[in-house]
Amino acid sequence: MSTRLEQDLLGELAVPAEAWFGIQTQRAVNNFTITGVPISHFPELIRALALVKKAAAKANAQLGLLEPHKAHAIIEACDDIAKGEHHEAFVVDLIQGGAGTSTNMNANEVIANLALAKLGHAKGEYQFLHPNDDVNCSQSTNDAYPTAACLAIQFAAEPLIKDIHSLVTSLTQKGREFSDVIKMGRTQLQDAVPMTLGQEFEAFAVNLAEDIDRLHEACQLLCEVNLGGTAIGTGLNTHAEYAQLAIGYLAEYSGKPMVPAFNLIEATSDMGAFVLFSGVLKRFAIKLSKIANDLRLLSSGPRAGFGEIQLPPMQPGSSIMPGKVNPVIPEAVNQTAFQVIANDLAVTLAAEAGQLQLNAMEPLIIYNLLNSMRMLGQACSMFEQRCISGIQANREHCAHLMNISIGSITALVPYIGYSHASRVAKEALHSGATVRELILRDQLLTAEQFDQLLHPDQLMYPHRARQLEEPAVSHASE
Amino acid sequence: MSTRLEQDLLGELAVPAEAWFGIQTQRAVNNFTITGVPISHFPELIRALALVKKAAAKANAQLGLLEPHKAHAIIEACDDIAKGEHHEAFVVDLIQGGAGTSTNMNANEVIANLALAKLGHAKGEYQFLHPNDDVNCSQSTNDAYPTAACLAIQFAAEPLIKDIHSLVTSLTQKGREFSDVIKMGRTQLQDAVPMTLGQEFEAFAVNLAEDIDRLHEACQLLCEVNLGGTAIGTGLNTHAEYAQLAIGYLAEYSGKPMVPAFNLIEATSDMGAFVLFSGVLKRFAIKLSKIANDLRLLSSGPRAGFGEIQLPPMQPGSSIMPGKVNPVIPEAVNQTAFQVIANDLAVTLAAEAGQLQLNAMEPLIIYNLLNSMRMLGQACSMFEQRCISGIQANREHCAHLMNISIGSITALVPYIGYSHASRVAKEALHSGATVRELILRDQLLTAEQFDQLLHPDQLMYPHRARQLEEPAVSHASE
Amino acid sequence: MSTRLEQDLLGELAVPAEAWFGIQTQRAVNNFTITGVPISHFPELIRALALVKKAAAKANAQLGLLEPHKAHAIIEACDDIAKGEHHEAFVVDLIQGGAGTSTNMNANEVIANLALAKLGHAKGEYQFLHPNDDVNCSQSTNDAYPTAACLAIQFAAEPLIKDIHSLVTSLTQKGREFSDVIKMGRTQLQDAVPMTLGQEFEAFAVNLAEDIDRLHEACQLLCEVNLGGTAIGTGLNTHAEYAQLAIGYLAEYSGKPMVPAFNLIEATSDMGAFVLFSGVLKRFAIKLSKIANDLRLLSSGPRAGFGEIQLPPMQPGSSIMPGKVNPVIPEAVNQTAFQVIANDLAVTLAAEAGQLQLNAMEPLIIYNLLNSMRMLGQACSMFEQRCISGIQANREHCAHLMNISIGSITALVPYIGYSHASRVAKEALHSGATVRELILRDQLLTAEQFDQLLHPDQLMYPHRARQLEEPAVSHASE
Amino acid sequence: MSTRLEQDLLGELAVPAEAWFGIQTQRAVNNFTITGVPISHFPELIRALALVKKAAAKANAQLGLLEPHKAHAIIEACDDIAKGEHHEAFVVDLIQGGAGTSTNMNANEVIANLALAKLGHAKGEYQFLHPNDDVNCSQSTNDAYPTAACLAIQFAAEPLIKDIHSLVTSLTQKGREFSDVIKMGRTQLQDAVPMTLGQEFEAFAVNLAEDIDRLHEACQLLCEVNLGGTAIGTGLNTHAEYAQLAIGYLAEYSGKPMVPAFNLIEATSDMGAFVLFSGVLKRFAIKLSKIANDLRLLSSGPRAGFGEIQLPPMQPGSSIMPGKVNPVIPEAVNQTAFQVIANDLAVTLAAEAGQLQLNAMEPLIIYNLLNSMRMLGQACSMFEQRCISGIQANREHCAHLMNISIGSITALVPYIGYSHASRVAKEALHSGATVRELILRDQLLTAEQFDQLLHPDQLMYPHRARQLEEPAVSHASE
Repeated sequence: MSTRLEQDLLGELAVPAEAWFGIQTQRAVNNFTITGVPISHFPELIRALALVKKAAAKANAQLGLLEPHKAHAIIEACDDIAKGEHHEAFVVDLIQGGAGTSTNMNANEVIANLALAKLGHAKGEYQFLHPNDDVNCSQSTNDAYPTAACLAIQFAAEPLIKDIHSLVTSLTQKGREFSDVIKMGRTQLQDAVPMTLGQEFEAFAVNLAEDIDRLHEACQLLCEVNLGGTAIGTGLNTHAEYAQLAIGYLAEYSGKPMVPAFNLIEATSDMGAFVLFSGVLKRFAIKLSKIANDLRLLSSGPRAGFGEIQLPPMQPGSSIMPGKVNPVIPEAVNQTAFQVIANDLAVTLAAEAGQLQLNAMEPLIIYNLLNSMRMLGQACSMFEQRCISGIQANREHCAHLMNISIGSITALVPYIGYSHASRVAKEALHSGATVRELILRDQLLTAEQFDQLLHPDQLMYPHRARQLEEPAVSHASE
Repeated sequence: MSTRLEQDLLGELAVPAEAWFGIQTQRAVNNFTITGVPISHFPELIRALALVKKAAAKANAQLGLLEPHKAHAIIEACDDIAKGEHHEAFVVDLIQGGAGTSTNMNANEVIANLALAKLGHAKGEYQFLHPNDDVNCSQSTNDAYPTAACLAIQFAAEPLIKDIHSLVTSLTQKGREFSDVIKMGRTQLQDAVPMTLGQEFEAFAVNLAEDIDRLHEACQLLCEVNLGGTAIGTGLNTHAEYAQLAIGYLAEYSGKPMVPAFNLIEATSDMGAFVLFSGVLKRFAIKLSKIANDLRLLSSGPRAGFGEIQLPPMQPGSSIMPGKVNPVIPEAVNQTAFQVIANDLAVTLAAEAGQLQLNAMEPLIIYNLLNSMRMLGQACSMFEQRCISGIQANREHCAHLMNISIGSITALVPYIGYSHASRVAKEALHSGATVRELILRDQLLTAEQFDQLLHPDQLMYPHRARQLEEPAVSHASE
Repeated sequence: MSTRLEQDLLGELAVPAEAWFGIQTQRAVNNFTITGVPISHFPELIRALALVKKAAAKANAQLGLLEPHKAHAIIEACDDIAKGEHHEAFVVDLIQGGAGTSTNMNANEVIANLALAKLGHAKGEYQFLHPNDDVNCSQSTNDAYPTAACLAIQFAAEPLIKDIHSLVTSLTQKGREFSDVIKMGRTQLQDAVPMTLGQEFEAFAVNLAEDIDRLHEACQLLCEVNLGGTAIGTGLNTHAEYAQLAIGYLAEYSGKPMVPAFNLIEATSDMGAFVLFSGVLKRFAIKLSKIANDLRLLSSGPRAGFGEIQLPPMQPGSSIMPGKVNPVIPEAVNQTAFQVIANDLAVTLAAEAGQLQLNAMEPLIIYNLLNSMRMLGQACSMFEQRCISGIQANREHCAHLMNISIGSITALVPYIGYSHASRVAKEALHSGATVRELILRDQLLTAEQFDQLLHPDQLMYPHRARQLEEPAVSHASE
Repeated sequence: MSTRLEQDLLGELAVPAEAWFGIQTQRAVNNFTITGVPISHFPELIRALALVKKAAAKANAQLGLLEPHKAHAIIEACDDIAKGEHHEAFVVDLIQGGAGTSTNMNANEVIANLALAKLGHAKGEYQFLHPNDDVNCSQSTNDAYPTAACLAIQFAAEPLIKDIHSLVTSLTQKGREFSDVIKMGRTQLQDAVPMTLGQEFEAFAVNLAEDIDRLHEACQLLCEVNLGGTAIGTGLNTHAEYAQLAIGYLAEYSGKPMVPAFNLIEATSDMGAFVLFSGVLKRFAIKLSKIANDLRLLSSGPRAGFGEIQLPPMQPGSSIMPGKVNPVIPEAVNQTAFQVIANDLAVTLAAEAGQLQLNAMEPLIIYNLLNSMRMLGQACSMFEQRCISGIQANREHCAHLMNISIGSITALVPYIGYSHASRVAKEALHSGATVRELILRDQLLTAEQFDQLLHPDQLMYPHRARQLEEPAVSHASE
């Protein structure tokens, strides 16, 4: 392979002749091989880096810190990258030492070489446009990298929120479809009181819809960035107007309401917004897992389980047991949730390991956040398309289970008292007699009273006023 | 010990004659012995339970569901408990099966017996006022207990926020006290660029102050409660106006803006608000731990470490090494933080284990939240009083370290370029020559230029406009 | 309260006149108030400290480093403490800074004052026998404290193992009791192939029994201690024969095969054995939780669930739903398991936070290990006595579920092939026809063949040779 | 793309004509897209699957359950795969529902088609050799898959142990190289007592070497497998001699001492051995992280830190600060450790989620174990080659720090007592006078006595007998 020689503080190193990246990227490639996953695995991060570099170049040019022709070439290069080009040149490993320096230099070098090409120079002719002096002008890894991360996470939140929304919509539709399927509600896996299967699915929808709001709130915290703080937040080597200007352009280019953090020194080492974001992802994962568990319970059987619903069969369930169909999609959802919960611990550990003016573990935080978001998005989409949308109710079995249950006695407590009701329930359970028989035998209620109190509508919707009239999504608060 | 006999669904059991609690509490005491910590360990929980029961009684009376004299007696009993009386009667273990039924019944029984006494009846004469039929009227454990938990956590947040505020104030004061102590900033434990020790402490203050806002936000989510949903959220056995009425009284009695959840079925099994609250506590713990780590680093020595600050000596540091004084307070802060991070995992596991219409693991969630909050409050107060407030700067050592460092060369990059600066830095590091000598030797700058660019004010506050003029607390956003 | 004045490196401080502890303990009490739980909460730790101090005194006396009358008094004091006396004098908080110095000094001071009393001196007359110079002779907190911890954990393991053994025995007995209860086995909550309920309980027993072996192995790692290493493991200020001698006496007094660690410097900061021990506790917690989950599933109902077993009712299950009985004991077991899993994270975080020659977070590690062990012991005992021992099989329902299931078709695969079997299963499931009808209709087997292949014994125990003949406990390996 | 049609229980589906895999693999590819990482990412898993299938075929043939020509073709196909061929046909995602069914069927289908080719048949002509009836003969996913996992982890442990060994060797060599570098030991980041830098590195080596033993022990637990248990461990559809025979061949082919588990029902759902293995990986990660932290501390500076060692510079440390070189390799080690600790949580969550006769989350467990092992291996190798082997001691700075410290006074305690020593230390610290001056002034010791007691050899190696004479690796126990 033909190479070109580049040099840095540590000496010379050969770089593939055709590579858009340069010597520092090459060193990082040699140094870091932990995951084998390059940063280009997350295009939103590459796009965010390009926008940060573009905003900086624009501000630098305006302040007279960067010659117009250089700024112009840099901006054009950034635009190409933001459009999705040259991502394959972003080759450093997602887990890397150096607090993101390798990622930042990968971006600086690729942009410099692309800009050099636009200016008619060869790769590596940094005397005409330099990765550090020009592309990285007024910046440090320590402000450019976390700023890009804040943006990348917001970019990645968009498709995730869309996937959650589709899942919520699908659950809401099932809620409506099943609104007349009467069944026993269960608490602590014990028969409790009646409800509809529709209410159960509607609750799933409302439950997940809340997290769309939480994600939006968590994104807001990511709009405060430390760009302009340079190395430790003191803003050394920046023009007094640079931070405001650059972040203003970043807001314009990204469409996100980015603003400078109140205290740039604090913002430089603070991982708080990432930790909270990860906490919201974890919360969503917990909810997804609970719903997957519920669906696996409700579809348990087909004969020796709850059997209230049927999941669409996606693949034969066993290599030995013919006819067995397993809840493979919810199981994959559970596992995704577990990984996301685990990734939150990686974020926690990395955040706690910050020291003094910086957190050197930031790459791990960003890796885990972006990875969790991608996995959750995939899981939502898979869950919706390959499971939720095809769920069918076993209406008759639901009705049968409710009829043989004794849970309906709860509805009589206000009329016969808790003590009487307990005694009757106990006897019904052991004797096999029905609640109705015992209540009438003991003259606790008349037959008319009994039937009126236990009318399904009365049980499911004691207060019609509380019913939902509009889709869950728009109302969800918490 | 003299006893009285009570009975329930399962039969008879002896209860201590003088006990305010009854048979179901006694069963729970016999059943659960995991932690040995009774629920009275958290008075905010007992107070919250009393207010929920009071609000329910008031609403029930108003709706004609509870006779006025009973309601009156119940409300008086609740007031006594809310004032702090009879907490020793709340004896069930914090870790309990039953999704809080034992805690709810402990409250129902104590309140019933207190009310009976007010009405001139003996303990256990439930025919006059019944724990279930009267005190628990229109309620289920499944709505009364989580509602009380939501309130208890908000009560517990008040002193915690006050403790955080004191800590932030103390850090802010140190920030001012040290505003003229020039030192090297460090990134990745390597000498970076200059700053003041005041900036470092100010950043700590801003960092923690943000979490006061986050706690307030997390409390807001706890204002939506499922009271009135009864067993599974369908509101079975409640009057149509009960939920709104009872929660309105609860808001009045507690001073918190409590409102009914949008979907009571969803709200009954949803642990999302607790999970998020725990996430905020974890975030705060991570920050506390990072600051404790920083203080231990900055005070390392006294001779063979960083030695930039001195923590107040709180106790002899060693049983064998005379004169040794250790950073014992930050070390205890670290350990508290670790426990809080661990407790968040317990909350996570418990939240994920919810099934269908309820989460039976709620007691563990509440235990861990209240425990973490108490520990964090203690840690903040200890940190402030026994460490932060007595920290002294080693001004001369800070200055000395900055003078021998080469990190200041960063300030010259805009004038001599990154490549020249790198070369000079490398030579300075290996030869022992100063940066100034080499810059002048190579005629990269004149002596006047050099001295002007490296003037301390120029390094620390490149942009005076960015300085803080007001206390960190009021401005903190993120 | 009357006080006496004592002094140390930092100056004077008043100590309660009657206190067996001294000034350094008093400082620690003032400093650390995080948990409110004193070290005496774990008597095994106090006993272990006493034995370490006794062994050290014996070795010191033998080497001529401690006068015989002092050694004698110290040893007598330690014996009193080891017997369970004076534990109330061990007052420092379990979470403390200082890497255990406060705990070690609490022991040194109490032992010194007890020994002084035996010699006829007043409390605090340390000129006659000194906490540091005499009781702590040849020791540092950094070797005495972790050595005591290694011993304390082994002491605490004894009752835990006994509790696990009882639980295993109870599960094994249920395994035998249910050995003729035929039921459907389930994989992924879907009906799989037949088994007996006895096999299910026997598997629980074997599963837990393995962890007794793992605990014994983990205890072995705790037998290597760093006593004699003093401050950092170099053995500074110790006689060349001291370590071997003291640890020999410790083995004798404790009955545990304690030996010196191979490399005392490594051993001083290494938390590896604690981490592994915690990992074994976590593993056991995971298993307990899985079994609790299974029992809750199998007992779900009573009418609308699996209903294969009945847990003994321990308390009324609901404040609103009469007759409801919940699986409260397994639920408490789950919560205990979650807390233990969380505590393992605290251990992990603390272990990772060690720095250079010591781990200052050791108190948190010891606290969590002892706490987890106590909780697990309580949970095992509660589980055994209040749940397992009273479980009853719903034999008829088990048989009914198996009869309506189609899972038995798996047994025919070797004779009719997987493809035929799949087709029949699918048709049976949708048409409601039985497997037998379809097999005979399609002439895949004769009626005789069919009945022979599906004979219960054939299904449950295809290979009689594989049956257990002896109790699970003694055979369990992994 | 040209396709062929295959069919299963659910109907027909097109498979790429040239694919070695079949319809069930294709369904799984369509269903699971969470990680994007195919199982072929871990060749040890593919190799293990091939050996399990080979052993089963051999046993089946011997028992007359599989025709010789089929067995022969299957064994040849397995041999090809075990050699590393056709791994690209193992395409299902690592995170999958179905408890590994998709992975098992991927193997069954690829092997069937390869065997068909060897027999002269076209892909998909399963009437001649069937993935289920022949390749999967006497097996279920539920025994074949976990058995393969147990083997795969042992295979993956081999290179990991080798990488750890190299790292230990490198640390041991540094221990020898630095055996004469005298420095201050530090506890709680405070100056403690003297030691050599060699002792410090030797302790690192011993610390990590212990985990090689722990890994070997953890591998032993993985030798007990449930092959022959089929669906739920009852061994349904297997010949009485099959389990013993097949596992015997597996031991022969793999070179690992594989044996049947004592209780196959227990073994089928038990994740205990995986949990413990993960715990050992976590323990190793904790140790690695602690060592990385220590190296970052010891190399902090270059001027304003500890500065005792120099890590080899691997890349320029900053995009803005010239001359800055950061500890990028230890930072990447820390992050790897954090991810491994997090992955252990994923394993924990998945293990706890097992239900009844199976754990459906097993794929997540295996994914995380294999991933953690690979990452740790990479990290060890990177750590050794790019950091440890190039570390240099700053001998003069080490000596200087020791000389100005007061920690050496500890060595005088046995001669002047703890109280005198404390007083002198305190005065020395505040006055700047040396310990020697104050000791002589107060006539606590003569100059000769002082110098003899503080001779370096006396401090570092009080007991020469305790010195190591042989390499750490071979002696390490715990």
